Parts: sequence; C-alpha cells; structure tokens
Amino acid sequence: MESVSTNKAFGGVQGVYRHASAATGTDMTFSVFVPDHAPGAKLPVVWYLSGLTCTHANVTEKGEFRRACAEHGLIFVAPDTSPRGPDLNGNAVADDAEGAYDFGLGAGFYVDATQDPFARHYKMWSYVTEELPALIGEAFPADMTRQSIMGHSMGGHGALTIGLSFPERFRAVSAFAPIVAPGQVPWGQKALGGYLGDDKAAWRRHDAVALIEDGARVPALLVDQGGADQFLEKELRPELLEAACAKAGIELRLTIQPGYDHSYYFISTFMPAHLQWHAERLKG
Amino acid sequence: MESVSTNKAFGGVQGVYRHASAATGTDMTFSVFVPDHAPGAKLPVVWYLSGLTCTHANVTEKGEFRRACAEHGLIFVAPDTSPRGPDLNGNAVADDAEGAYDFGLGAGFYVDATQDPFARHYKMWSYVTEELPALIGEAFPADMTRQSIMGHSMGGHGALTIGLSFPERFRAVSAFAPIVAPGQVPWGQKALGGYLGDDKAAWRRHDAVALIEDGARVPALLVDQGGADQFLEKELRPELLEAACAKAGIELRLTIQPGYDHSYYFISTFMPAHLQWHAERLKG
Repeated sequence: MESVSTNKAFGGVQGVYRHASAATGTDMTFSVFVPDHAPGAKLPVVWYLSGLTCTHANVTEKGEFRRACAEHGLIFVAPDTSPRGPDLNGNAVADDAEGAYDFGLGAGFYVDATQDPFARHYKMWSYVTEELPALIGEAFPADMTRQSIMGHSMGGHGALTIGLSFPERFRAVSAFAPIVAPGQVPWGQKALGGYLGDDKAAWRRHDAVALIEDGARVPALLVDQGGADQFLEKELRPELLEAACAKAGIELRLTIQPGYDHSYYFISTFMPAHLQWHAERLKG
Repeated sequence: MESVSTNKAFGGVQGVYRHASAATGTDMTFSVFVPDHAPGAKLPVVWYLSGLTCTHANVTEKGEFRRACAEHGLIFVAPDTSPRGPDLNGNAVADDAEGAYDFGLGAGFYVDATQDPFARHYKMWSYVTEELPALIGEAFPADMTRQSIMGHSMGGHGALTIGLSFPERFRAVSAFAPIVAPGQVPWGQKALGGYLGDDKAAWRRHDAVALIEDGARVPALLVDQGGADQFLEKELRPELLEAACAKAGIELRLTIQPGYDHSYYFISTFMPAHLQWHAERLKG
C-alpha cells in the first residue's frame, strides 16, 4: 500500500491510498479518514460505498463526514466503485465501460462478475468484503469487531446487500437514495445481466429486496431518499424495500426528504444523522 | 442573471448563477447559499473570496459552510477569482494568464487593473465591492446592512483589504491563510506589478499591512493559518500582520494551527468557528 496524499482535517488525517489488488488484478485507490485518537486505541470502522460514476474522491471532498467522524471517533473508509485501467479487459470492455456511465468503469455494482470478459477484473464483492477489510485491519488503527456500512445509490445497493449478507459483521446499515431492487429496475437489470448473466439465483444474492424475501435479516435499516430525486421512480423505488421490510419485520426508518435531489448536497445534509445512528450502534 | 443550478441543501438552496458583468465586460459565475427563512425575512450576508486557481466551485463543494450558515441564518456568497474567457484581452494576455497559476485567469487579486492589456477586464475590486453586492441585494433575500467578509489565501488578501477599506460595511473580517502583505512577497509583487504597474501608492491600497500602517482600522480580525502550509514563510507571512495590528491596536486573533496545510481540508475544519465569529457580529 502506498500513500497518495494525507491532509490533516478536523484533528485527524484524511488519507488517500493505492494498492495492488489481488481481487481485481488492478491497482485500487481508496480513502480513509482516521480521527485523532489515543496512542494504541482502535476505532470502529464505517464503510461508505459510492454510486455510479464516482471514485473515492466524491465523498471524500463533498461528503462532509469528517466533523461527525471526529466527534464520534469513527474511521471512515471509501473504496472505489470499480477496477480501473486503460486496457481493462481489452478494447471490447474498455469501449463499453467508457461509453456507459451505468456499466463497467465506475459501475462495478459490488458483485463478483462471472461473465466474460468482466469476470477477470470486476470482483468488487470480494474486494470490498474480503481484501480491503483485511488491509484496513492491518494498516489502520481499526477495531474490525465494530464495523458498519452505508452507501449512496449504487453504493446504497452495495451497503444493503453486504449488510444483509454479513449481519454479524455490520452493527449498522444505512443508505442514501439506494437502488433497493436491482433485479426490478433498468440500472440493475443491465448490470446484473452483464456481470452475472442469466443466473437469477445469483441476481437475488445481489438484490436487497430479494435477499430479505429469501430470509436475510438485520435489526434495522436507515434510509433517506430525496423527494425530488430524478431517479426515484424508475431506478430507486424505496416502496419495494418498505414492503419487503414490513413483511419481514425489519425496522425500516425511511424518510422521503422533500425537495432533495440525488447529489452530494443531499448526502452531506443527512450525513451527520446517519453517522450519529451508526455511532450509537457501534459504541453500544 | 441566469440560474446555472440550484440544489436543496441543509434546508436551504445552494445556487450557482451567471450574469453579464459590466465591471469585467465578461460573463461572471458565482454561488449563493440561502438558508431556509421566513417569507419576507432578510438575512445577513457573508462574502467568501477564494484563492489562486479557484472558482466559486471549490468552496461551494469543499468548504463545508452550509451547516453553520443554516444554523446561524447566513447567506453565503462566493464570487469567482477573475474574469474568464477564451479570448480575454487577446492572445497576449490569454497566453500569460493560462500559463501562470498566480497571475491572470483565476488570479485577479481583487484589484482594478490599470495596466494594459489587463485594465479592460480585470476589475475584480469594482466587481466584488460594487457590482455584485448590488445584484445580491436585488436578487436575494439579503440584508445588505449586515455584511461580513472572509477569504482564503489570495481571497484572504481580498477579504482583509476590502474589509479594511469599508469598515462601515463589514461587521466582521476573517481569513484562512491570507496573503497579508502582497507588496512584500513574490505572489503579490508579481500581481500588483502586473495589474497596477509601478504606482506604489496604489499597491498600498491593496496590501492589508500597508493599509493598517496607513491608518485603516477595524475592531478585530480573525485569522487561522496552517502550521504545515507550504506557502507560510515565503508568501503568507502572518507575522507581518501581527506586527502591524499590534502597532495599530487592532485585536488580531491569529492562530497557527499545527499540522494543517493550505487546502480545503484545513479551511473546512475551521469554517464553523469563523462563521460562528461572523454570526456573533452580524447579529449583535
């Protein structure tokens, strides 16, 4: 792991790091904020998964999470959203990936692709659930027995599916404007089809609503959704999560926030409340 | 004036606007955050002047000012740092301006240039002190009897010189890592020489330390400066402001913040304390 940049902020250190990932077979860049802490102390870890087109940089620059993380003593980790590289899987993939904002580069959808040519590098599930946690636990003052996960849009999908898949690992799961049922919406159908092919059982393991229908459980979910979000009705459809949680007995704190859109202006507004919610569960 | 974008944030509206400026003879873009407020209410205005290479966008995306502005009920205005245009003053200027980060585009230094070819468009003093305030007063729910000003680096220079020049207008003046004595440092000597020529009396009107030496007074100044700022010793030199304020009897609250650099990671950390300080003076 090499350090790309470190900047003091809110008493702690905002760093950006790069490492050669075995999971993706590419270099991967991620950011970590470590608040000021006592020597030898280990801090809980909040994972933040970003949305389509984003890298670690969007939330790092615009997410306004550092004040709350410093107050609560939380490490904040922001991975990238896909493997990246000029020749990734050859021209066929590079063309497709760079031509579409919702598939390929910046759009890994937090799955391990099984379809050629994506299967070689698009292993974001393994990267985010296995390889990067091991690195974080080694290289930072992280208490890996206290983790939580949140995300935005495609990253909200990632946070919900990973949180539902590892309920013993994540003490809190929340999302901003998540894709809750990728199997039922265009973004998700394109991505799951492209990465996983026709294996609908595999799709269900990467669909929060389907996971809940199939028995996955967490104590509670916190979701904020902008009421003026342009993707609300076609791609996000929080009512599907609401119905699944109601049927499963999962406490869902879903708020449609009037007038808010899909941007970091929305995310930054509600970031402190999410981190407060995470902190209560990470420290309790 | 046309709206470029508006986004709901922290209960208010973060807007970006563009207008044809008479002062600069170009289109100018700026951002304004207006917190939620009662119908008909008018809110105090905080001006934020940005540093070299910046536009309105840097602080708008990375400044983390909206939470505090929403709490205190403050409008936050962020102008651009120079006129902009592909053919600005012809190729001679465009070449120079685009070739240097510290002169020309993104580096107007908040002066009205008197030297050809800059004199035609580089009128940032008139733009920021006359034209844009008139527009803000007309187009936003702004109480122009309650204004304050802050800035970063070159914008800290702008905030200090404008605040010292209009003590009746600005109830609070603060800066992050300001250029305090442009007449004595390389950035400032290049800019003041280029825009104002050899007229050293004109230089002194755009130099905070010289203004204080020449009799300008404000009740107090708040300045935070990163101790690990790479520009501290050569370009910023806060000790010169400290000496001038001590001699003049101006209360200077200067803090060298250990470990902080020149970036928005530094600015965003101390932004809430600055806005608190402004709010106390705007509301008192």
